[in-house]
Amino acid sequence: MAAAPPPHDPAKLRDAALKDDVAWNITEGLTTEIGQRQAGSPSEAKAREWAVAKLKSLGFKNVHIETFDIPGWERGEERGEVVAPFPQKLALAALGNSGATPPEGVQAELVAFGSVAELQAAPLEQVRGKIVYVGHAMRAAQDGSSYGYFGSVRRSAPSIASQKGAVAIVIRGLGTDSHRVPHTGVTNFDEGVKPIAAAALSNPDADQIERILERGKPIMLRLVITPRMTGTRESGNVIAEVPGTDPKAGIVAIGGHLDSWDLGTGAIDDASGVAITAAAAKRIMDAGRPRRTIRVIWFGSEEIGGNGGAAYFAAHKAEPHASVSESDFGADRVWRFETKLNPASAPLVARLEQALAPLGISKGSGNASAGADLGPWVRAGSNGIDLDQSGLRYFDIHHTADDTLDKIDRDQLAQNVAAWTAMLAVVANAPETLVQPSNLTLPK
Amino acid sequence: MAAAPPPHDPAKLRDAALKDDVAWNITEGLTTEIGQRQAGSPSEAKAREWAVAKLKSLGFKNVHIETFDIPGWERGEERGEVVAPFPQKLALAALGNSGATPPEGVQAELVAFGSVAELQAAPLEQVRGKIVYVGHAMRAAQDGSSYGYFGSVRRSAPSIASQKGAVAIVIRGLGTDSHRVPHTGVTNFDEGVKPIAAAALSNPDADQIERILERGKPIMLRLVITPRMTGTRESGNVIAEVPGTDPKAGIVAIGGHLDSWDLGTGAIDDASGVAITAAAAKRIMDAGRPRRTIRVIWFGSEEIGGNGGAAYFAAHKAEPHASVSESDFGADRVWRFETKLNPASAPLVARLEQALAPLGISKGSGNASAGADLGPWVRAGSNGIDLDQSGLRYFDIHHTADDTLDKIDRDQLAQNVAAWTAMLAVVANAPETLVQPSNLTLPK
Repeated sequence: MAAAPPPHDPAKLRDAALKDDVAWNITEGLTTEIGQRQAGSPSEAKAREWAVAKLKSLGFKNVHIETFDIPGWERGEERGEVVAPFPQKLALAALGNSGATPPEGVQAELVAFGSVAELQAAPLEQVRGKIVYVGHAMRAAQDGSSYGYFGSVRRSAPSIASQKGAVAIVIRGLGTDSHRVPHTGVTNFDEGVKPIAAAALSNPDADQIERILERGKPIMLRLVITPRMTGTRESGNVIAEVPGTDPKAGIVAIGGHLDSWDLGTGAIDDASGVAITAAAAKRIMDAGRPRRTIRVIWFGSEEIGGNGGAAYFAAHKAEPHASVSESDFGADRVWRFETKLNPASAPLVARLEQALAPLGISKGSGNASAGADLGPWVRAGSNGIDLDQSGLRYFDIHHTADDTLDKIDRDQLAQNVAAWTAMLAVVANAPETLVQPSNLTLPK
Repeated sequence: MAAAPPPHDPAKLRDAALKDDVAWNITEGLTTEIGQRQAGSPSEAKAREWAVAKLKSLGFKNVHIETFDIPGWERGEERGEVVAPFPQKLALAALGNSGATPPEGVQAELVAFGSVAELQAAPLEQVRGKIVYVGHAMRAAQDGSSYGYFGSVRRSAPSIASQKGAVAIVIRGLGTDSHRVPHTGVTNFDEGVKPIAAAALSNPDADQIERILERGKPIMLRLVITPRMTGTRESGNVIAEVPGTDPKAGIVAIGGHLDSWDLGTGAIDDASGVAITAAAAKRIMDAGRPRRTIRVIWFGSEEIGGNGGAAYFAAHKAEPHASVSESDFGADRVWRFETKLNPASAPLVARLEQALAPLGISKGSGNASAGADLGPWVRAGSNGIDLDQSGLRYFDIHHTADDTLDKIDRDQLAQNVAAWTAMLAVVANAPETLVQPSNLTLPK
């Protein structure tokens, strides 16, 4: 197959992108001028307007918002303390979709489990009327895999604890740092299960609890956690395009998510993702018109339930997508690329490898997922390409008040833009037929 | 001069101390079983009882508490936000001795200064009715010197701001980390100056303020900060001894401070200091009776105004002290020793150098200060010996909620115990006459 046409030479565009400042400017602007932008909040609505203005000013076409409804959830008060045997204030944060304690709080004995499996196996009478604690041993990993394994502590334990009659649950938050900035994140209660107050402790607080437990003393905890479901709120995806020359060649869809958790200003999660993908698309646009339309999607509601990705899939599944890729793992350097390609698209791999290797990016094992927002496309059979950032410090920061601009390393951010630019130069101009199978359907 | 007698061979005791676990056990116990212990609080009183029991159980003699009164100060609510142009919640902590806003808070425009000198030079009309912000460029340094230079931002700026009619002040906290855990610490208002609400912002919050300022937009801030002076509270020093064989040879006084700030559990500031000094004294005690009495003092009130050190000096200045040394700079490895010695004590330097060099500890420039609590003795003319810990990460943690046990590196803690043990073996047994000048008087 022929290489990309001269204006989109992947190597040249890639190397020029190492001096990118567009991604930094977007990340800096969004975190400074909007800050936290929880899905469904007034800040997220402002972020959409900010995004439209920014994407238009960068020269993108067809810039628009596609709104959708989400079930709103809003943090309230959150305080906790060890009442006995050793009084201590706790640093904690309610999990998304957490139920509430009464306004005056709950006080109960703690019952501790080392894992979800232990909680699952516990008899009802051990849990009923107690505050459950669940620990875990998540560690930093370049591919973030430890989050996958231990994620059920946040996702499933609260529902299980409620089913067994617990009055509340605190977990060791899913983080790898040692700071008293707890890691929030979404949980879900199974159909028919009463939502109870569910909060994450910071690691030093979880350590403290475990040290008291080691002394064999019963622990009395007091929690005031008062979030609420707000009813339906509006969220929305912001979409922008670099029009291609060949409408039948399929869309190259890329993006990140515009919403953030409410505790920080969402720098690594995911201002940098929307910034990297837009900056790379702009570099292709500025070099000349690519074969395929590049669509940049800034998803409006990823954190609280993946609603933005679901809304986009529902609205656009009839449009042929040549490939999908999301950036939602911070802004540390890309170290690996993963692909999941239909047979006709397989020749892309060697050209991607050639374009990305000079950035220190090696080929993975063929397991692209396209992230939370574009993942549905890959699961339904579309081509997916991932550019995997190093996760070694991602879970130090993820979903905490510490997710702020100072965590972004400008050189690594530019390496990301270079990687995405090279990928787009290859994929958007590929002479192969890259469109997805027709009649996309999500597997059950 | 003769070397120390065989039971106190500095090299042997030093090397054995590298396996110390007494200091770890004290640090772990105090932070777990007592936690925060702000001077004058019920927790500090509990910490004194805990300390007496611990020091007795370790075998020390003459274990007792010497109480004194302090002016109490208690944290209240503390919340802040940028109201305009870009609404953001701020992570902040009131400074010790801060005044209060009305319960409903204050809202005012921010006026920003890059340094105390800039604030000092500002005309009244620029400050009156405003909330002052003062920034600085403190950086990590092995000797912590940057804290000295920039410390006036916390110590002096609030009083100056009040004198110029500011309604409140927020400073970039005196910390070198990038976490949203603000650094508290004491401030003081000059005689006759009305205390105003004074709080430290975390570095990411200060960065955010400065980025908004760079955009040239006026900033409206809202603060609710409601600490109070509680009136007189009781604090106390806990004292324990290793009795010496020669009462006329003077006391070797060592220690740290038992009180902590209220935000964390005071692991590096200063559980580790009381732990290191007691563990080292115990090693000398367990090896045999030294020539000089070693007195271990766990000072009751260092943070809020150095009252513990002042009370000890006032009560004991008639007793001859051969030398004084404090550990109050965390538990990272000792890299340097400093001495300030009377001429008759000068031969100690070479023996200290020989005993400490194998631990990677080199001789300083002869400027021992003996810390906040024992510093009065050195200023009044006593011998002082400092074992300087590396301060490269001390101010990441100092005075924050992050000051918790996980910040203690056990190997480095043991290196500290080894250094203190070696120092005590040399000094407590030195054949020289090491007593202080008579009629100790503090310089004005």
